[in-house]
Amino acid sequence: MSDLKNDRFIRALLKQPVDKTPVWMMRQAGRYLPEYRKIRAEAGSFMNLCTNPELACEVTLQPLERFDFDAAILFSDILTIPDAMGLGLSFAEGEGPRFEHPVRTAADIERLPIPDPELELKYVMDAVRTIRKNLHGRVPLIGFSGSPWTLATYMVEGASSKNFAKVKGLMYEQPHLMHKMLDKLAQSVAAYLNAQIAAGAQTVMLFDTWGGALGTEEYLEFSLRYAQQVRSLLNTNYEGQKIPTILFTKGGGQWLESMVDTGYDALGLDWQTDIGKARTRVGDSVALQGNMDPITLYANPDIIKAKVATILEKYGDGSGHVFNLGHGILPDINPEHVKAMVDAVHDFSGPYHR
Amino acid sequence: MSDLKNDRFIRALLKQPVDKTPVWMMRQAGRYLPEYRKIRAEAGSFMNLCTNPELACEVTLQPLERFDFDAAILFSDILTIPDAMGLGLSFAEGEGPRFEHPVRTAADIERLPIPDPELELKYVMDAVRTIRKNLHGRVPLIGFSGSPWTLATYMVEGASSKNFAKVKGLMYEQPHLMHKMLDKLAQSVAAYLNAQIAAGAQTVMLFDTWGGALGTEEYLEFSLRYAQQVRSLLNTNYEGQKIPTILFTKGGGQWLESMVDTGYDALGLDWQTDIGKARTRVGDSVALQGNMDPITLYANPDIIKAKVATILEKYGDGSGHVFNLGHGILPDINPEHVKAMVDAVHDFSGPYHR
Repeated sequence: MSDLKNDRFIRALLKQPVDKTPVWMMRQAGRYLPEYRKIRAEAGSFMNLCTNPELACEVTLQPLERFDFDAAILFSDILTIPDAMGLGLSFAEGEGPRFEHPVRTAADIERLPIPDPELELKYVMDAVRTIRKNLHGRVPLIGFSGSPWTLATYMVEGASSKNFAKVKGLMYEQPHLMHKMLDKLAQSVAAYLNAQIAAGAQTVMLFDTWGGALGTEEYLEFSLRYAQQVRSLLNTNYEGQKIPTILFTKGGGQWLESMVDTGYDALGLDWQTDIGKARTRVGDSVALQGNMDPITLYANPDIIKAKVATILEKYGDGSGHVFNLGHGILPDINPEHVKAMVDAVHDFSGPYHR
Repeated sequence: MSDLKNDRFIRALLKQPVDKTPVWMMRQAGRYLPEYRKIRAEAGSFMNLCTNPELACEVTLQPLERFDFDAAILFSDILTIPDAMGLGLSFAEGEGPRFEHPVRTAADIERLPIPDPELELKYVMDAVRTIRKNLHGRVPLIGFSGSPWTLATYMVEGASSKNFAKVKGLMYEQPHLMHKMLDKLAQSVAAYLNAQIAAGAQTVMLFDTWGGALGTEEYLEFSLRYAQQVRSLLNTNYEGQKIPTILFTKGGGQWLESMVDTGYDALGLDWQTDIGKARTRVGDSVALQGNMDPITLYANPDIIKAKVATILEKYGDGSGHVFNLGHGILPDINPEHVKAMVDAVHDFSGPYHR
């Protein structure tokens, strides 16, 4: 970590002593920033932005110019892997992702390739290299991927879904096919994250956005099992550097004890879970990342600061906490409110690290 | 309970011995039944159906003709109270509920009346009386209401919401106003449920559909506290009959221990929570209702039966389990699949009650 001017984030993930609690924000490079909206408009489409390493770098760095964030996160989408598998990703304006060729049959699953990250996903690796270079060691860079289960939901449904009827149908009726698909996805995700690490990502995070749609038994069998497979395949010691890993299951608060066993260094918490109780439950084994309700950022800065103080107090003394929202920031938040949050985390957290 | 030919459901809620596990289904009177769709089309609108006691009775009884359900549930909507408060409820086709006059200001909250159930909600009480009479004691009748918090979400948002930005904004920025509104709602809900009991409801259930959108602290302060206030105001001993009470918070699996303390006889579980672990956590104090994933009903009957068997086995020996889905049945389910579920519950559960 010799090249890092600020390694608070890495240290907190590894539960090493820090001076202050580090903070970053899911979707910190995004629509709530006017400078992002400008670049996004010039790019013409969201995918144009993702696939252009210079533009992806520019929007990745934008929030660091405004706020005292302790980490940068690669600007990309969670659905790049299925796109690289040939499913044809597109984003209709205001509608969310769509796949031209959803996965429905045994033959569809059979023919799914495991993409070579430096070929089909080279634009992502180029973005990682460009960002890492332009960061000049200011803060660490987070790489990420959607989890195998979460990718599978979009691949089978063909789009965002409310009830997940198609993917759960496949899971209940033909579990062996679902397992085959998830195994391919776990291999693909691990290769993708390892390539990001090789390209310069200093931490990797797995987003299991839809694990919470499952029952406990199905979560363990179809989601967590493949998050663990990904973890087991990751190069977490890269050129002498320890690469911390983060697992985030939205709606997964009931399953933290099981998530601990997968070997990730940190667990992301949504806002439903009490972070103090979560710390008691997971013990000293993992760090925790989270978990302010994104809606809090609509409230006035005094209320935001009070909420930050409460979350810091709940986590309590010592390292192992990375402050974040419990889910991505919403597009119409006032950036001044983000500043109130970030500064409050740094201003209030010193006493917990003495 | 002398007039009940089948009191399995009531007995299970009170953890008294039963011969088989009782079963009913949220939204059992609904769109998946062709005979429902016929009446619904004749009524012209959903609210016409709710406000006509004869039609409401007819659709309430329809699922009992097809399936061996152990309870009937009043056909109505969770938003009748805000409608009776003058907010102007309507349902645009395929769009969900809308209020003409959402609640946004202190003055809006100040002027909210506490409806007299036998005046402004007389159509509901007439439906309860009509259904109870036409049931002839075949199975018990469940009355219900939305929880104060859940009603408040629709009243402030004015419609269904994804992020609950407006109602959470009010909660974070002006908690005293939110409490005032929730207190009025708790009084209104208790009066409404007590009137349903007086009209013939033999069990009452509180639907906290959106409690799970809150953080732990906010759930306890703004949702559960008012569910408890409702409970404390209920006439649960009516004319010598014990009226069991059920509390269901969708997404509330982390908070079961706190829910136990409110005094409800049973807790509803969504499908995310493992019912075996839930039973261990709540101990002998309450019964549990649930919790098959509604999507399971798309699968073939053999898979449905296997899932029923798993849930029964997880709950284990003894009374205190009411089988149900973890949320309402979806509109495009094949009724034959419902029959497979209901019959499997009765066929497989005997050994757990010896």
